[in-house]
Amino acid sequence: MENIRGPRDLKALSESDLGELAEDIRQFLIQAVARTGGHLGPNLGVVELTIALHRVFDSPVDRILWDTGHQSYVHKLLTGRQDFSKLRGKGGLSGYPSRAESVHDVIENSHASTVLGWADGLAKAREVLGGEDHVVAVIGDGALTGGMAWEALNNIAAAKDRPLIIVVNDNERSYGPTIGGLADHLATLRTTDGYESVLAWGKDVLQRTPVVGKPLYESLHGAKKGFKDAFAPQGMFEDLGLKYVGPVDGHDTAALESALRRAKRFHGPVLVHCLTEKGRGYAPALEDEADRFHTVGVMDPLTCEPLAPPGGPSWTSVFRDEIVAIGEERPDVVAITAAMLHPVGLTKFAERFPDRVWDVGIAEQHAAVSAAGLATGGLHPVVAVYATFLNRAFDQLLMDVALHRCGVTFVLDRAGVTGVDGASHNGMWDMSILQCVPGLRIAAPRDAERLRAQLREAVAVDDAPTVVRFAKESAGAEIPAVGRVGGMDVLRRAADADVLLVSVGVLAPVCLQAAELLAERGIGCTVVDPRWVKPVDEQLAPLAERHRLVAVVEDNSRSGGVGSAVGQSLRDAGVDVPLRTFGIPEEFLAHAKRSEVLADIGLTPVEIAGRISAALARKESPARVGKQAREVSRAREQRPAGKERAE
Amino acid sequence: MENIRGPRDLKALSESDLGELAEDIRQFLIQAVARTGGHLGPNLGVVELTIALHRVFDSPVDRILWDTGHQSYVHKLLTGRQDFSKLRGKGGLSGYPSRAESVHDVIENSHASTVLGWADGLAKAREVLGGEDHVVAVIGDGALTGGMAWEALNNIAAAKDRPLIIVVNDNERSYGPTIGGLADHLATLRTTDGYESVLAWGKDVLQRTPVVGKPLYESLHGAKKGFKDAFAPQGMFEDLGLKYVGPVDGHDTAALESALRRAKRFHGPVLVHCLTEKGRGYAPALEDEADRFHTVGVMDPLTCEPLAPPGGPSWTSVFRDEIVAIGEERPDVVAITAAMLHPVGLTKFAERFPDRVWDVGIAEQHAAVSAAGLATGGLHPVVAVYATFLNRAFDQLLMDVALHRCGVTFVLDRAGVTGVDGASHNGMWDMSILQCVPGLRIAAPRDAERLRAQLREAVAVDDAPTVVRFAKESAGAEIPAVGRVGGMDVLRRAADADVLLVSVGVLAPVCLQAAELLAERGIGCTVVDPRWVKPVDEQLAPLAERHRLVAVVEDNSRSGGVGSAVGQSLRDAGVDVPLRTFGIPEEFLAHAKRSEVLADIGLTPVEIAGRISAALARKESPARVGKQAREVSRAREQRPAGKERAE
Repeated sequence: MENIRGPRDLKALSESDLGELAEDIRQFLIQAVARTGGHLGPNLGVVELTIALHRVFDSPVDRILWDTGHQSYVHKLLTGRQDFSKLRGKGGLSGYPSRAESVHDVIENSHASTVLGWADGLAKAREVLGGEDHVVAVIGDGALTGGMAWEALNNIAAAKDRPLIIVVNDNERSYGPTIGGLADHLATLRTTDGYESVLAWGKDVLQRTPVVGKPLYESLHGAKKGFKDAFAPQGMFEDLGLKYVGPVDGHDTAALESALRRAKRFHGPVLVHCLTEKGRGYAPALEDEADRFHTVGVMDPLTCEPLAPPGGPSWTSVFRDEIVAIGEERPDVVAITAAMLHPVGLTKFAERFPDRVWDVGIAEQHAAVSAAGLATGGLHPVVAVYATFLNRAFDQLLMDVALHRCGVTFVLDRAGVTGVDGASHNGMWDMSILQCVPGLRIAAPRDAERLRAQLREAVAVDDAPTVVRFAKESAGAEIPAVGRVGGMDVLRRAADADVLLVSVGVLAPVCLQAAELLAERGIGCTVVDPRWVKPVDEQLAPLAERHRLVAVVEDNSRSGGVGSAVGQSLRDAGVDVPLRTFGIPEEFLAHAKRSEVLADIGLTPVEIAGRISAALARKESPARVGKQAREVSRAREQRPAGKERAE
Repeated sequence: MENIRGPRDLKALSESDLGELAEDIRQFLIQAVARTGGHLGPNLGVVELTIALHRVFDSPVDRILWDTGHQSYVHKLLTGRQDFSKLRGKGGLSGYPSRAESVHDVIENSHASTVLGWADGLAKAREVLGGEDHVVAVIGDGALTGGMAWEALNNIAAAKDRPLIIVVNDNERSYGPTIGGLADHLATLRTTDGYESVLAWGKDVLQRTPVVGKPLYESLHGAKKGFKDAFAPQGMFEDLGLKYVGPVDGHDTAALESALRRAKRFHGPVLVHCLTEKGRGYAPALEDEADRFHTVGVMDPLTCEPLAPPGGPSWTSVFRDEIVAIGEERPDVVAITAAMLHPVGLTKFAERFPDRVWDVGIAEQHAAVSAAGLATGGLHPVVAVYATFLNRAFDQLLMDVALHRCGVTFVLDRAGVTGVDGASHNGMWDMSILQCVPGLRIAAPRDAERLRAQLREAVAVDDAPTVVRFAKESAGAEIPAVGRVGGMDVLRRAADADVLLVSVGVLAPVCLQAAELLAERGIGCTVVDPRWVKPVDEQLAPLAERHRLVAVVEDNSRSGGVGSAVGQSLRDAGVDVPLRTFGIPEEFLAHAKRSEVLADIGLTPVEIAGRISAALARKESPARVGKQAREVSRAREQRPAGKERAE
């Protein structure tokens, strides 16, 4: 493996070299990913496929595009990136393709089902500008269940003479088994590898059978692709106008290369159907039905025991247990997952209530719109997704759920900074884009106790959408309230009414520590947790009016988040007390540990306390500190968006 | 027609009565829609289909669901709503289904491709709760190109024994001809109506032909749906596991009823393919290739001449001409439409540069992601969509375009209040949800001159997404600048630095009039148009600091819009001058004329000036006015979201 410095080095290898290389790569992946954590199963499944792609095509002139991107480790190894020691860590390799890392990488996005759209755009650009390069899109069968894939297939098929190669990496699962009519169809295709010989024989027989004056074979053949379908219903892809090649054994490099070369010669859109095995070559991954080896933390590669202690119950596990308890009491509560039953904590609910849970595929739009139908039909759906993936369902949440006043609860896991998975996995957009949705309520619980309580409050709302958002990792210790104002919990009371600190959700411990630091400087700081951050509590403005400064701290984009909503609420109440907002700056965050990212963006007690006391000092000497604040602000703007983006 | 008070009255009619009824309805629609404006072509195409649906099914127990909803006029006429005199007007019938109007209406949403998801949800709810009612979803062939339709088909097909009826209303077009592989496939299906008799004959012949020890018919038949496909490739729907019925003549009520009854008896998902003619029975509609009779304004039904003067060049026409001029100079500028070439003003560009424009279908997600591919491939795509439909592509704009720093320009037509099309057509969300997108720039031109200039500025940005948003209706007269501060145009300068009024885009005349009213009260008011509203101009904070109050006026949701962004920008600069924001309240707006809606929500010079002077007065006497403002705010919260929603 060490001798492969780039795709060119691959092309000289013999078939037996290739087998050895594949074995090397698998051993490397198991060892390396065990050390750092990362995506294991998906990468073990595409070793031969990646080798074949780089032998048949000439990256980066030919564009090899990876959907979702978590299966690009082998591609990294073959394109000069073999130092996995800091994989997904600060300054190390990204867990996804990255343009800053390599000219061989195109799509950095970890949201699924996008690759066919990218490929369609690149192929159209090549057509306009002229060029002979190939565009190759690798997509999983799970990602084909996403609507974007369909929109793209429809467009790709429209241009019969615009070459574009789609490689379907069919392992019958995304996180869990792929579902739906498409999955059944792919299953049919999988069982038909002998059809070409049957076809040849059939042609011979049928040409001698006359039907309405024409040989039967011609009659059948003339009806588009009917006869071939009789033995091998490759069906819908050819129905749409895509040439179908396959199925191909995705672990047979020679077969793969032959199929890819055929596809490369074809002057139009072609789909190569490859059958692969997720976790190939690593028994623990193959044997785990819940597919927990899709992504792994740091672990012992032999015993598969995690080496880092998990640190208390995770947010996900708190939700997992509570939703079952709610389900016991409320027969109308049902659940929806978008191909992530286990990761979002719905496994137990599914075991207990198998008829009340639906995996809709990688299809967040459908999760939301079918939830509107379920609610209109008399049920209360709970849609559990990662916060970042809710972006896919914004229009449906607004236009189908909220406009129709449907009681649907969206549970957003991995909200806020997630860290190691990089820019596109952070759940830092939800509290911004949801602010304008009429009637919507958002809960940001600060601890496990609040999550349980607020989840119950959410499913009790039957005429509007509700959102419950929580972070990655451990839910931490309970943070008791010392009082209540309106619907808000008071977490800390100060004698001097200098600062009102509004703490959003999981950042409560950070806020309480910041308040302590301020107290040490003689600044009185009351801390409230609004619990429900949208709508802003009516009692916040009167409370704010009694302070010299209000500060809002949230793990969401500062642009249009809770801080902005608090600002509007104060303005509307005619309260002009100065406000400062702390959150995630408007930039894409490079991968690093969650704690490192939080420190980098200033969501730490020291930084928050420092900036609050500076703002207060400015009120005493406006000119000086105002200038200073503007300089800080300007410096932030000039900072590059993240190390990995410095092109 | 007048005798039909509800679906029950339909069931007693004879076949000849039905023909007469259909004729009555068509004449009524042509006359009524000419008087008020509205959707004409789509409704003329579904007269017989709607009659048949209401005869075969029992609404509202059975759920008849309309995708997009602009074709529900016939449904309204048959369910007791025959007063079309104020169609789409304040207090009159909605142009879409409306739950407040009738128990026969379920989906109010005008965004396409949602109906199959709703149907899936309703069918699942029926299964959980028990019930025998039927769920019938009517969807156009155009709407099938949307990804949501695919996600839903995949889910619907997964449950082979959950009854659900999909009626495809295939008129080969949405606004323009439907495109893509699916359209080609439907075209194949359309030509195969004779297949059932061929099938019967073929069965007889083939049963006598042995193949590998089995009769050929059985071999073929056993291979899923191969044989039927040989003569009638109904293909992909059956591939997915949906029973296919059709094609059926969509203007033959008897044939439609027969097909629908067959579908009703089937114990699983079934698709009925109906062929209809958009604009049926109205020659001008049938003969117009640009499909301008899809929606019409008030017109003379005989001459088709518009009766209301258009009032100067529309925003759309200014864009239409300028993008052609830009295209002449910049061979790398290409354009994308989501099935709305004519409505968004790309017809001329398409005529001039046919190889540089793509209609991607009703597929905003694909519009955005393929634009990212085009930009990465070296072109500058201009994606032209209605503002409200951009909501569908938020994730793609963020994750594919912005994260990858692609130079893509989004042109948002119908931004702000659109009025007569009701809640879901208002383009009031874009400036809220886009605030958190890193690197994005948003232009809100105030007049035609600015639109031309800012469009050019937008396409000159090649490393970030740009947005240019403008309103419905006329672009109005030119509004000259009297000065410049930073990148902002000063529209009016006041000697006394009381108020800085920040005017967003098309609301400049409203702001200038408000400033005059304030001047009459002795309040000095400077008006600036920032031109680019995101990012907020760096010079705004220093300018604001020299005023007693800053006000922002925008035709976008107040929640998280430009007002909020200005607030954050002031805070970050340490400028704590009071701010007031004017915009669209956080509610869904009922249909009415645009001017009526603007008046209702207080976006008028009188209201704005009044509230600004009240805010200034409060600064002199804080307690009194603060209380008053809170009361206003509370009254607003208690106001129902819109008349049509008072259930």
